[in-house]
Amino acid sequence: MEGLIMNYPLTTNTILEFGNSVYHHKKIITHLPDGTRHEYRFGDLYKRCKKLANALTQKLGITKGDIVGTFAWNHAPHVELYYGISGIGAICHTINIRLSSQQTEFVINNSEDKVIFVDATLVPLVEKIASKLETVTCFVLINAPSNFKTTLLNTIHYEDLLANESEEFEWPALNEKDACGMCYTSGTTGLPKGVLYSHRSTYLHASTILSPNAGNYSNQDTVLLVVPQFHVMAWGFPYLCLLSGSNMVLPSSNLQPESIIKILIEEKVNKANGVPTIWLGVYHEMKKNPPREKLALEEYIVGGSALPKSLIEGFEKDFGIKGVQAWGMTETSPLGTVCRLQPKHAHLSDNEKLNIRAKQGIAFPGVELRIMTDEGTLAPTDGNAMGELQIKGAWVVNSYFKTNNLDSFTEDGWFKTGDVSTIDADGYMEIKDRTKDLIKSGGEWISSVALESALMAHPKIKEAAVIAIPDEKWVEKPLASIVLVNDEDKISDEELIEFLSRDFVKYQIPRDYVFINEVPKTSVGKFDKKEIRRLFAEGKLI
Amino acid sequence: MEGLIMNYPLTTNTILEFGNSVYHHKKIITHLPDGTRHEYRFGDLYKRCKKLANALTQKLGITKGDIVGTFAWNHAPHVELYYGISGIGAICHTINIRLSSQQTEFVINNSEDKVIFVDATLVPLVEKIASKLETVTCFVLINAPSNFKTTLLNTIHYEDLLANESEEFEWPALNEKDACGMCYTSGTTGLPKGVLYSHRSTYLHASTILSPNAGNYSNQDTVLLVVPQFHVMAWGFPYLCLLSGSNMVLPSSNLQPESIIKILIEEKVNKANGVPTIWLGVYHEMKKNPPREKLALEEYIVGGSALPKSLIEGFEKDFGIKGVQAWGMTETSPLGTVCRLQPKHAHLSDNEKLNIRAKQGIAFPGVELRIMTDEGTLAPTDGNAMGELQIKGAWVVNSYFKTNNLDSFTEDGWFKTGDVSTIDADGYMEIKDRTKDLIKSGGEWISSVALESALMAHPKIKEAAVIAIPDEKWVEKPLASIVLVNDEDKISDEELIEFLSRDFVKYQIPRDYVFINEVPKTSVGKFDKKEIRRLFAEGKLI
Repeated sequence: MEGLIMNYPLTTNTILEFGNSVYHHKKIITHLPDGTRHEYRFGDLYKRCKKLANALTQKLGITKGDIVGTFAWNHAPHVELYYGISGIGAICHTINIRLSSQQTEFVINNSEDKVIFVDATLVPLVEKIASKLETVTCFVLINAPSNFKTTLLNTIHYEDLLANESEEFEWPALNEKDACGMCYTSGTTGLPKGVLYSHRSTYLHASTILSPNAGNYSNQDTVLLVVPQFHVMAWGFPYLCLLSGSNMVLPSSNLQPESIIKILIEEKVNKANGVPTIWLGVYHEMKKNPPREKLALEEYIVGGSALPKSLIEGFEKDFGIKGVQAWGMTETSPLGTVCRLQPKHAHLSDNEKLNIRAKQGIAFPGVELRIMTDEGTLAPTDGNAMGELQIKGAWVVNSYFKTNNLDSFTEDGWFKTGDVSTIDADGYMEIKDRTKDLIKSGGEWISSVALESALMAHPKIKEAAVIAIPDEKWVEKPLASIVLVNDEDKISDEELIEFLSRDFVKYQIPRDYVFINEVPKTSVGKFDKKEIRRLFAEGKLI
Repeated sequence: MEGLIMNYPLTTNTILEFGNSVYHHKKIITHLPDGTRHEYRFGDLYKRCKKLANALTQKLGITKGDIVGTFAWNHAPHVELYYGISGIGAICHTINIRLSSQQTEFVINNSEDKVIFVDATLVPLVEKIASKLETVTCFVLINAPSNFKTTLLNTIHYEDLLANESEEFEWPALNEKDACGMCYTSGTTGLPKGVLYSHRSTYLHASTILSPNAGNYSNQDTVLLVVPQFHVMAWGFPYLCLLSGSNMVLPSSNLQPESIIKILIEEKVNKANGVPTIWLGVYHEMKKNPPREKLALEEYIVGGSALPKSLIEGFEKDFGIKGVQAWGMTETSPLGTVCRLQPKHAHLSDNEKLNIRAKQGIAFPGVELRIMTDEGTLAPTDGNAMGELQIKGAWVVNSYFKTNNLDSFTEDGWFKTGDVSTIDADGYMEIKDRTKDLIKSGGEWISSVALESALMAHPKIKEAAVIAIPDEKWVEKPLASIVLVNDEDKISDEELIEFLSRDFVKYQIPRDYVFINEVPKTSVGKFDKKEIRRLFAEGKLI
């Protein structure tokens, strides 16, 4: 017997309508690449989304199920595109601007984008591959001066597109299972794979993050979205800010530490997100040039890579700003876990607390986690047993776009993350490594993530990346590539071995160290270990 | 094109599984009618729900779609019944123990309950009507001593039912649209009407309340559930506490102000819910006998009736405890709105803030509100235009059980609440009256709720209920029934008219006052105006 409840599909349109009806006075603030500041309200967003919906359907001929690309930084028009495109039942494909030309060409052709909305500053990247794009009929230029020159054919300026459109538009009835957004994986191990989010998964993901155990976002907050809108729908923040009535601050390409600090101060931002690399940069900049006044920033939530303990500790001690670790993947919308302390941890020492906070945390309601051992058995949740992390839930993919990636899913329907993890008795999950980054030395596993986190706690070290290199005796051994805070500093191998010996046993400690200027990063800002391995293989790491 | 996302139904089983996997250490504490205290963990709840599922399916022959009744106070076994019954795909019908015998008989026969789980202390109420129950095959006695005597046939003790059952049970696959819970309206205007909640509506309702703009519940909290589990699934709290990892405190029949205060202190409760009557009682008791230490209680959330401004103010000034107004109905799961201040209100005076906090508040994401005028047009959201409040959303009913209540729904699918309300430009809804309680005097509307709230702000007045009585000149005029804080106090009509003239214009102010010992209440603790009108008609209000 079914419940006698209204049919009320969970769509991005319900989010936009809600944001407009209750929070039309809340702000969206953009700091544009040229340094200018743009501000409007959720009520303005709403009207412009409706104009966009009219333009998409009538001027550009976009219909339900069409895929529309965006190639843009974080700014108000990009938020309009999120809602406007999915609002008419089309799919908003946010193209990662940091992919290689070949990858960009591949994802656009693979997704069959009909139209691409592109930032004027990013047009050169698209011009390079324009002749190879098979399905794109039109490029819409965002924030382009009127005399803008481009070799792209069939262009129209975004503001011209919207100019004469009506602010009245009736959203079509949508099925909540319909796709609303699309994002490709970063493709570090092969071709990028397309992930199609549904209206339902997008709504539930955003709505769940609001809760105080998760992100804790409310109408009291002003949130800086450092995570690019071209990465996994900006972790759902353009949606959750409308659900929570949080002011949204968008930095576009102003992602240098000094720019972020300036925006944090100017907009009185109290919450923010981003990958650890960004916050590492902000922290070191604040140490060098301490801001004159205390920032309003209370906490930053990170994902993408492990948040180094030293960063959690330093930011909190020096500036009273809390780092919160979360974990997720493109395939999980992305947020799957978040790490916060509970009353049961109150009696622990600061160091024990830090050890917990450095874990990836507990699952959100709506997703489930498990660890499978190499033998295919369920690992005990004891915080020690390692195995592959698997996940299922209301915002986890069940397949990739146009591909049969059967080896990414188990027979009983779980997604295989490729992460090696543990789960403790309280449900706290900890990523030990990517399956392919784990080092097996003399038959024993060594976690590169643990070594990196420990090394980055050294006051003279800014970044550290550990890979496995071949060894005659132990088959594999760890090699640490190190970036120093100050180039003129020096640390001896002996000093580092001594430093690590506090936390690691002898066989786990690298004997080999190289000092480099920068750790190579992937398009999403993670350490690019494939690239580090390549440099090593070519004899360029010495 | 559908999103490529896993099928992950939102069911009460996913809530229970989540609560067990991440919050198995969290507590459920019951204060039993005999004064004893019972405590166990979510992990224990989980195991006992599985034992119950085995017993229901194997011993009692309950199958998917069957309706199972509960007739019980708030306690751990009642929580087990919520999850155990819906977990196997049956429907948990929580019978209101405060209905009349005729109504109780009606709802049990109407819902065709197969089995009824009944508190030992409430057995006498069921014995009275047992011979008239047409579908009940078995009564399960909760918290009954082993030598318990009853005239009920086919009884079994709850603990005996569970005793030998296995803790292993595999939940069946359920459709999230399947019914999981059932509750009848209080039937103040006729026969109670059955409302069938779905797994999906129950999940979404509970999950939405977690957010800081709404209830703000987290694993830092210990929550007292004053709202009976036999009222609208206890406002979703048995579900949301598992989602949030909040300790749950259940008072059973210990609802006298002194008992509630004792429990608040003993269990260090920091959040609670309940109808205003309860908190009015607690406040007056705390004024009379101030607790020796400051309570951990931070806030109580109320619904069911308007929270008097005087209570918000008094509780906060005298004890630092915040009252939060929410609004809902049996037909809306129940929560539809909640009232909290926003940063935009920061500049207002205390009195202006209080005026906002006394409103019913803004809609939750997932529901929509509108006001329809008598002329059938949409009223402007200006805070003044009155009309009938209508609601739609993901946890709002679309019909009643076994009845064609077409006049409760609009043609375009909204539920007609029967409340006369306004909505202001910021989306804050305020209930002015029940449609049938609004007073039309000399062609002008008078809000009985506004008069009651104003009267209850008088230091000598505990409760005030206003009804319309016939008048030769004005057709209708208001009559106020008043309960004094101290019986020996006296207030003249002139004093009251003078008191009200600060906030009301002349024609709105009652000229007629009667002093009574207690305002008659409905089975859910609201002022029973039908009964007051009857007393007046019979000449018993003088």
